[in-house]
Amino acid sequence: MIAVLSGGVGAARLLRALSGVVDPTSLHAIVNVGDDLEMHGLCICPDLDTITYTLAGLNNDELGWGLRGESWRVMDELAALGGESWFALGDRDLATHLYRTQRLRRGATKSVVTSELAKHHGLSVHLFPVTDDVVATTFETAIGHLTFQEYFVQRHHDVVVTSIRYEGASDSTPAPGVLETLRDASLIVIAPSNPLISIEPILQIPGVRDILQGRRSSVIAVSPIIQGAALKGPADRLLREMGFDASCVGVANYYRDIVATIVIDEADEDRRAEIEALGIDVRVTTTIMHNEQNSSMLAKTVLA
Amino acid sequence: MIAVLSGGVGAARLLRALSGVVDPTSLHAIVNVGDDLEMHGLCICPDLDTITYTLAGLNNDELGWGLRGESWRVMDELAALGGESWFALGDRDLATHLYRTQRLRRGATKSVVTSELAKHHGLSVHLFPVTDDVVATTFETAIGHLTFQEYFVQRHHDVVVTSIRYEGASDSTPAPGVLETLRDASLIVIAPSNPLISIEPILQIPGVRDILQGRRSSVIAVSPIIQGAALKGPADRLLREMGFDASCVGVANYYRDIVATIVIDEADEDRRAEIEALGIDVRVTTTIMHNEQNSSMLAKTVLA
Repeated sequence: MIAVLSGGVGAARLLRALSGVVDPTSLHAIVNVGDDLEMHGLCICPDLDTITYTLAGLNNDELGWGLRGESWRVMDELAALGGESWFALGDRDLATHLYRTQRLRRGATKSVVTSELAKHHGLSVHLFPVTDDVVATTFETAIGHLTFQEYFVQRHHDVVVTSIRYEGASDSTPAPGVLETLRDASLIVIAPSNPLISIEPILQIPGVRDILQGRRSSVIAVSPIIQGAALKGPADRLLREMGFDASCVGVANYYRDIVATIVIDEADEDRRAEIEALGIDVRVTTTIMHNEQNSSMLAKTVLA
Repeated sequence: MIAVLSGGVGAARLLRALSGVVDPTSLHAIVNVGDDLEMHGLCICPDLDTITYTLAGLNNDELGWGLRGESWRVMDELAALGGESWFALGDRDLATHLYRTQRLRRGATKSVVTSELAKHHGLSVHLFPVTDDVVATTFETAIGHLTFQEYFVQRHHDVVVTSIRYEGASDSTPAPGVLETLRDASLIVIAPSNPLISIEPILQIPGVRDILQGRRSSVIAVSPIIQGAALKGPADRLLREMGFDASCVGVANYYRDIVATIVIDEADEDRRAEIEALGIDVRVTTTIMHNEQNSSMLAKTVLA
């Protein structure tokens, strides 16, 4: 059993790559819910959906998010009505949110709904929201308090963040199976997701960080930063703004109490000694999953 | 100023017909909200939407509900996911519900959202939900308690009703402008809507029935029953099940304390004396609004 702490796109690609190298039923993704949102009354779980769609082969590669073959009838009409349409929801994607919301209203937990959707899409990988409770990553910024999606989507993370909060995390309960999976997994992988806004909201759930600290020798992270830049999203910028080094060394340092090994990109091989000085082993490979061969190589390096 | 107590399709057609005969800005529709529902987390107001779409010329005549040129991407996908799809929501229609739900979450009242949607669609008629509070018409039936849409849409009203409740009505507050409109209108029209489930939930809002009783001589109803049958929906059946005569006489009797005049169909002219014996004046015309000429004739008869 392998546990994978997961954000969105980077984690989805790593899970897909790992699925090609090991029995996918051995993979247990523990997924961030800190950027889940309620919009138009609908419960939307971007990271869970990105992973589900990607593992189902339904991801939209042109957009980099959402479903392939998507249409926009509802959003076009909503925009025409003068409604809030900055958070784009495709017609097929909306069906997922309607399904989830109605099931939650009928008393199902987010875990149960996640499993139902995964089953519908024929996934073999097990998906767990890290908690069934509401956790919201929010930002204090130069222009005031912002919700996750206000910062991320509406403002394209183009504003200085002064602090990050994980609202509700400390009072939350891990979803069924999460702590057991982390205790029993032979390997715990931290996906190349944003440390501050994809992985930290998982670590903040009571019990999670403790288990990782206790099992540090079984935890391996993949750096989402290559040559000081994030492949996607504001990980580099946020690391800097929060006082960390925006590099694979900064990532290693961020995880030093919970990670024994980190996978860094070939382009960063010259930073190896700095990381080893932190007491963290280093593996070097290509970490950019832009084709199947690279992805497979990364997956094998993680599992080595 | 003319006030029109309104349900869905029949009221929408009467309002459209009246708009052709008088200045539509003089028309104030006070609309039932007892069959409003929350589904998939969305706030759906079938009667308000039917009237809005019809007056905007966007109604789907083939279906008899919803929008013309509608598509079903979201519903098709939701059905494929195994979601609850018995309450059909078209893609364009969904935009209305997303818009309304988000505005309500942002603190707008149903009245305000109704006005915004009416304005967007260029309506001249004024639309008021009878209350901004939640009122739910529900049924005790041979198979147990049913919500309005469980009875109406999911079971196609094919079950015996033993009692009808208007939950929340007695504790509700009339929406801004409703009582003032009823007090000031030169004429109050009760549309040819279902007396028990379209009009009664309006009458149950505190203050409404009192004003109509006090202004009985200014109130005219159009019978939704012709020769013992409803043109659409279960009005005849429900009247019988609730112990009323399923006829224009039964309708007149139902409204006798609040209505001085009733318009009945030509086919029911032989019931005139029975209604007059109740102390209610009778006007006879065609009440089936299946073309513009008939609709216009009915509108003129109402206003005569």
